[in-house]
Amino acid sequence: MPTTYLGQNQYGKAENRVVRITRDGGTHHIKDLNVSVALSGDMDDVHLSGSNAHVLPTDTTKNTVFAFAKEHGIESAEQFGIHLARHFVTSQEPIKRARIRIEEYAWERIATPGAAPAADGGEEKRHSFVRKGQETRTTEVTFDGARWQVISGLKDLVVLNSTDSEFWGFVKDKYTTLQEAYDRILATEVNARWRFNWTADEQPAPQWETSYDEVRRHLLEAFAETYSLSLQQSLYTMGTRVIESRPEVDEVRLSLPNKHHFLVDLEPFGLKNDNEVYLAADRPYGLIEGTVLRDGAEPGIPVTD
Amino acid sequence: MPTTYLGQNQYGKAENRVVRITRDGGTHHIKDLNVSVALSGDMDDVHLSGSNAHVLPTDTTKNTVFAFAKEHGIESAEQFGIHLARHFVTSQEPIKRARIRIEEYAWERIATPGAAPAADGGEEKRHSFVRKGQETRTTEVTFDGARWQVISGLKDLVVLNSTDSEFWGFVKDKYTTLQEAYDRILATEVNARWRFNWTADEQPAPQWETSYDEVRRHLLEAFAETYSLSLQQSLYTMGTRVIESRPEVDEVRLSLPNKHHFLVDLEPFGLKNDNEVYLAADRPYGLIEGTVLRDGAEPGIPVTD
Amino acid sequence: MPTTYLGQNQYGKAENRVVRITRDGGTHHIKDLNVSVALSGDMDDVHLSGSNAHVLPTDTTKNTVFAFAKEHGIESAEQFGIHLARHFVTSQEPIKRARIRIEEYAWERIATPGAAPAADGGEEKRHSFVRKGQETRTTEVTFDGARWQVISGLKDLVVLNSTDSEFWGFVKDKYTTLQEAYDRILATEVNARWRFNWTADEQPAPQWETSYDEVRRHLLEAFAETYSLSLQQSLYTMGTRVIESRPEVDEVRLSLPNKHHFLVDLEPFGLKNDNEVYLAADRPYGLIEGTVLRDGAEPGIPVTD
Amino acid sequence: MPTTYLGQNQYGKAENRVVRITRDGGTHHIKDLNVSVALSGDMDDVHLSGSNAHVLPTDTTKNTVFAFAKEHGIESAEQFGIHLARHFVTSQEPIKRARIRIEEYAWERIATPGAAPAADGGEEKRHSFVRKGQETRTTEVTFDGARWQVISGLKDLVVLNSTDSEFWGFVKDKYTTLQEAYDRILATEVNARWRFNWTADEQPAPQWETSYDEVRRHLLEAFAETYSLSLQQSLYTMGTRVIESRPEVDEVRLSLPNKHHFLVDLEPFGLKNDNEVYLAADRPYGLIEGTVLRDGAEPGIPVTD
Repeated sequence: MPTTYLGQNQYGKAENRVVRITRDGGTHHIKDLNVSVALSGDMDDVHLSGSNAHVLPTDTTKNTVFAFAKEHGIESAEQFGIHLARHFVTSQEPIKRARIRIEEYAWERIATPGAAPAADGGEEKRHSFVRKGQETRTTEVTFDGARWQVISGLKDLVVLNSTDSEFWGFVKDKYTTLQEAYDRILATEVNARWRFNWTADEQPAPQWETSYDEVRRHLLEAFAETYSLSLQQSLYTMGTRVIESRPEVDEVRLSLPNKHHFLVDLEPFGLKNDNEVYLAADRPYGLIEGTVLRDGAEPGIPVTD
Repeated sequence: MPTTYLGQNQYGKAENRVVRITRDGGTHHIKDLNVSVALSGDMDDVHLSGSNAHVLPTDTTKNTVFAFAKEHGIESAEQFGIHLARHFVTSQEPIKRARIRIEEYAWERIATPGAAPAADGGEEKRHSFVRKGQETRTTEVTFDGARWQVISGLKDLVVLNSTDSEFWGFVKDKYTTLQEAYDRILATEVNARWRFNWTADEQPAPQWETSYDEVRRHLLEAFAETYSLSLQQSLYTMGTRVIESRPEVDEVRLSLPNKHHFLVDLEPFGLKNDNEVYLAADRPYGLIEGTVLRDGAEPGIPVTD
Repeated sequence: MPTTYLGQNQYGKAENRVVRITRDGGTHHIKDLNVSVALSGDMDDVHLSGSNAHVLPTDTTKNTVFAFAKEHGIESAEQFGIHLARHFVTSQEPIKRARIRIEEYAWERIATPGAAPAADGGEEKRHSFVRKGQETRTTEVTFDGARWQVISGLKDLVVLNSTDSEFWGFVKDKYTTLQEAYDRILATEVNARWRFNWTADEQPAPQWETSYDEVRRHLLEAFAETYSLSLQQSLYTMGTRVIESRPEVDEVRLSLPNKHHFLVDLEPFGLKNDNEVYLAADRPYGLIEGTVLRDGAEPGIPVTD
Repeated sequence: MPTTYLGQNQYGKAENRVVRITRDGGTHHIKDLNVSVALSGDMDDVHLSGSNAHVLPTDTTKNTVFAFAKEHGIESAEQFGIHLARHFVTSQEPIKRARIRIEEYAWERIATPGAAPAADGGEEKRHSFVRKGQETRTTEVTFDGARWQVISGLKDLVVLNSTDSEFWGFVKDKYTTLQEAYDRILATEVNARWRFNWTADEQPAPQWETSYDEVRRHLLEAFAETYSLSLQQSLYTMGTRVIESRPEVDEVRLSLPNKHHFLVDLEPFGLKNDNEVYLAADRPYGLIEGTVLRDGAEPGIPVTD
C-alpha cells in the first residue's frame, strides 16, 4: 500500500554550452548560449519502479540542442527555445511540457586595423570577437502543447546613480537606527524578467532581438532618469517604462539588490567627506523585489522549479 | 490614468551573517547563520510615489536579526526564523507576510590534547572549532499572521555510489546515441527541501534539531542502499524514506544534478578500463527534480520569489 | 633553543572596496577600486612573542586607503598605489617594504535622453553609470624605500577568433590521440601583466591611464590579427606588440587558458558540421603561460606572495 | 632584428578531473583528484615561429594523466605527481622541467545499515560515499631531471577560537582608530603549504598519506591551543609545531586571512552584548602571511607561475 505520491517533477540536460558560428563570406557571426532542458509528463513509472520506457535520456536532449543549432540555426535565444520546446512536446507522447532556459553571452567585434585590407577584391577579415561581459541575457520558453509562455530577461547588469537619490520618512521602531538620507548613491544589479503576451502560434511573434535591445535600453534610461525616493519607486518606474513602451510585454519582474555604498566617516582624520569617498559593501544588502503588470493582464503561469 | 499595476512584491535585508556564541563555563557553543528577511504587505505607496510611510527600513530588519540573536538566542534556525517572522507581522500594521530564509553552517570541535587539563578543578577549555564544510542547512519560514509554513532543507551534499547503478531500456529517437549502461557510477549533489506539517501555533512544534539530523540520515542511507535503475528512482526512494520515517514531514522536494562520471577510453593506450578510471565532468549535467508527498497531503503554498 | 626561524612574511588589509566620486558641476566621475595592502619589515617580535609594538594594525591600513582617496584623489590606480606605498614605507620605521595590489572596475555613462535638457542654463545631469563588466584592470605597486616596481595588467578579457588558427606538426607519443587541426576556433581569457621600466622618483612617470588603454588595444589587435599556428605564437606576438609599441613597458607576462571549442560530431544525426556548431568546454583546458621581455631588460624582481 | 626575447614559460593541460575507483571485493576505495600539468623546456620555436615540433600537445598530457591512473594507480597525490613529472621529463628530450599541481577532494563512507548483511557469506557492500567537503588537499611536485621539490598543503579549512585571543599594544598613527581588544574571536581560513626535504630518488620517500594527516592535525591543534596575542603569533606557532613534529618537513608557508567577527553594538536596543552576538564580515579582511623554516634549512626554489 503506497504511502506517498509523486508531485511536480521534471528532468533534462542542463547547461549545454553551444556556440554557433555563421559565415557570411569573411564576416563571421557568433551566438553563444547556455541551454537547459526540462521535460515533464507521464513519469510515474520511472520514479516508482525505475522503468525508463517513457524516459528520453538527458543525453538525447543534449544531442538535440546541438543538432538543432545546425538544423535551425540560432536566430535568437527565444526562437531557438521555441524550436526545442515544440520538438520535445510534439515528438514524444509521454512528454507533456517542455521548459527551455537559455542564457546568452554577448560578443562584440575586435577591430583589426593591421589586417590586410580588402581593397584588391579579397575579403576583409571579420572573425575576431571580445566577450562583452556586461549583462547575461536570459529567456525561458515553456510549452504544454497548446500555450506558449516566453519570459525573457537579463541579469548581472550593475548600475549606479551618484546622486538624485533620497531615503527618509520611513517607519521607525525600537530597532531603527538608520539616519535619513537626502543625497545618497543608489546602486543595484538589475535582475529583470519580462513576460511576452505572445502565447499561441496563431499570433505574430515579437521581433525577439529588437525587443531585447529596446527593453534593456528602457530599463537603463528609467533607472538613470528617475529622481528616487526609494528603490521601490525606481523599480516601479522601470517596469512601467517597459510596459508603456513595448506592447509585446505584459509583465516585468524585477529583483534589485540595494548595493549599499556607505559614506566613510573621515572626521577622525580631520577630513570632511563631502559625498566623495564611499565603501562599497557586499553583505548584507537590501533586496527589493516587485512585479509590474499591464492593466488588464493576468499574472503569468508560475513555472515551478 | 494608470496603465500598470503592482503585483507580487517584497523587500528586506538579505544575507545577515550572524554568529552567536553561548558560554557554558569553559565550554562554548556556536551557531553560524546567514539570515535573509523578506516582507510584504500594503506597499503600493512606496512603489507609486516613493512615500516610505509604510516602509520599515531594511536596515531595521538587519538590526532586528542581531538583537533577536541576543534576546531569544538561537536554539535552531527554524525557531529563530519563527521569532523573526512573528515579530515583523505582528508589530507593523502594513506588513502582512514575512518570509525568513536562513542558511546554517555547521562547526565541529577541535580536540586540544595539548591544552591544560582540567584535573585540578580548573575548567577544560572547549572553545575551538573547525567548520564542517559539508552541506549547508537551510530553512524558510513563512507567516501571514495566521498560518505558518516551514520548509527546511540542505544543499551541496555530494554523494556517490561506485556501483549498483544501471541505465537502460530508455526511449530512443533519431538524436539518441547513448549506450545502455549496466554498471555505472551514480553521483549527485543533494539539494533537498522538506515541508513540515506544523502550520499553527496550537500544534506542538517539531524538534527542529533532531528532525534535521534524522532527515539527513535517511536521505543518505536511502541513496546508498538503493540499487538504482535511474536517478529518478533514487530520488523517489529518498523522498519516500523521509516521509515514512518522519511524521512531521509531509513533502520532500529534491533537485538532483546527475554528476556524470564518464569511463575513460584507455584502449588507444593498450589498457583495459575495468570500471576504474573516470572523468568527472562539470557541464552539461542531467538535472532530475521531483516532489514526493505524503498520501492525503496537499502541496505547500508556493512562495513566490 | 629555537629550532625554527621566520622567513618571508607580510600583512595588511586586503580587498578594501573604495569608490570615489568626483563632481565637475552636474557631471560626476567615478573610480571604483579594490585595494589590498601588504607590508613587511622588522616583524620577528610579533611572530615569536606576540608583541605588536612594530605592528600598524591592518585596520589602520584600511583607514589610510579611504583617507587617501580623499586627500590625494584617485587619478589612476597606479598613482594611488604609489601614494599608499610611499606613505607606509616612509612613515613607519619598522616597515621596509609595501606592496599595494589594486583591481579596478570600469564604468560607462548611461545616456539619459529623457532627462531635462540644460538649455535654460541649468546643468545637464551626468551622474548615471553602468558597470562595463568586461576585463578587470589590475596593478601591483611595490616600494622598498628606494626602488619602485609597477606591474599593471588586466584579467578576465575573453577573446575568440572563429578561424585563422591551426594546430599540427606536434610531437606524438604513445599517449597522443589528438588529430591535427587546420581550421579551428582559438579562444582564450587574457590574463596579462606588464612591468613598467619606471623604477625611481627621478624618472618621469608614465601616463598611467593612456598607457593602459593603449596596451589593452595592442593586446586585442595582436590577438585578432595573428594567423595562429599555436597559442604560444599568439602569446609571443601579443607580448612583442606591446613592447614594440609602448616604450614604458619592458616585460609582459601572459597566462592564456586555451578555452577549447570542440566541433560537435553531427554525423550520427545525418548532419554535416562545417565549422558551425561547437561545444564550449570548461575543464580541462590548456594553459599557456609565457613572458616576453625587451632586449636588454632584466626580469623584474619577483614579488613573493 | 629581434627586439624582444622569451622569458619564463610553461604549458600543459590544467584541471584534469580524474576519479579512480579501486575494488577490494565489495569494498570500494575512491581517489578524487584535479590534476594540472605544466611543462617547460626548449620552447623558443613554438613561440617565435609557431612550429610545434617540440610541443607535446596538452591533450596528450591529459591522456597521460588518465592512463597513469590505470597504470600506476593513485596511492597518494604526491606519488601520482611524481610518476607524472618523471615521465614527462625523461620521455621527451625538449622538456626540461615538469610541475604537477594536484587538488584532492576527500570522501567518507556512508554507513548502510539497511543493506543486506553479509552473514551468509555474501560480501558486505561498501561502495557509497559522501564528499567530506572540508579542506581541499593540495600538492605541487616539481622535477628538473635531477632534483625533486614536493610542496604539499591544504586550503579552505576554516577555524575559529571564540576566546583566548587579544590584540593590543600596536602602533598608532594619525589614521588609527581601532580599539584595543582583550577578548575577541579569532577566525581564519587556513591556507598552508609545507615543503618536504625529500629531493632525490636516493632518499627514502615520506609516507605521504600519514604525513598529511599528521601535519593537518598539528595545524589544527596548534591553532586551538595557542592563547593568541596576534594572528602572526598563531601563524608562527602553527608552523613551528609542524616542523618540530614532522622531520620530513623543512618549511611551512601560511596564508591566514583574518576573518573578522565584529561584536555587534546592541546598546541602542537596550541590550548588553557580552561577547555573544557577532557580525561575520566578508571584506575587507586582514591578510597575514608568513613562512616558518627549520633552522639550517634553505628556502625552497621558488616555482614561477
